[in-house]
Amino acid sequence: MQPDLLTSILNGLSGTSDIKATGVVSTDGLMMASLLPSEMDEDAVGAMSAAMLSLGERTSKELARGMLDQVLIRGDNGYIIMTYAGEDAVLTVLAKPSAKLGLIFLDVKRAAEKIASIL
Amino acid sequence: MQPDLLTSILNGLSGTSDIKATGVVSTDGLMMASLLPSEMDEDAVGAMSAAMLSLGERTSKELARGMLDQVLIRGDNGYIIMTYAGEDAVLTVLAKPSAKLGLIFLDVKRAAEKIASIL
Repeated sequence: MQPDLLTSILNGLSGTSDIKATGVVSTDGLMMASLLPSEMDEDAVGAMSAAMLSLGERTSKELARGMLDQVLIRGDNGYIIMTYAGEDAVLTVLAKPSAKLGLIFLDVKRAAEKIASIL
Repeated sequence: MQPDLLTSILNGLSGTSDIKATGVVSTDGLMMASLLPSEMDEDAVGAMSAAMLSLGERTSKELARGMLDQVLIRGDNGYIIMTYAGEDAVLTVLAKPSAKLGLIFLDVKRAAEKIASIL
């Protein structure tokens, strides 16, 4: 695992103004690399990402939707997108409420593939 | 609360071939109305919907995304979309992997507004 490479992938992803924060989290909730605004708690991002993915996985299986790939949360102040990057890591992205979701999905998918390839 | 009205809203939503199952669940996880395939467990849909919304709400607040509006789960066998229909109920929709997400979001939003207006 190479933190500099992870950070450079997150940097590329944060290039769009719709994305406010990004992080790569291990599936047990520990942060591996992140680009977060200073007011945001790294531990909270890690812990909530791991918890959502874990419950999302169970829900997907219970309701016959197969292997979990992504969880999206929409709040009135923006989006949280959590995507598996390989089997052991999760790419978490926070976006503005006005974000174009189609573009974000595309960028996130490509970044998750890059992260999976270097972990 | 009028179960027949709820069921007729779910019927309208299930008209598109991309949607496989729909349910209206109280925020404590009890089913209020549903159109599910016979192999799907109503209790599981209710319980998982309530659990995902509850954790989604906490995640949205912890990560400064505001009040939760919707949770989307993407598995390799399709989507689960959970949307608040008013404050006390959740509209859960299961869709095929090939579903056009933009259209589904629109239909789900309109159905959730109708449900909220009659509860």
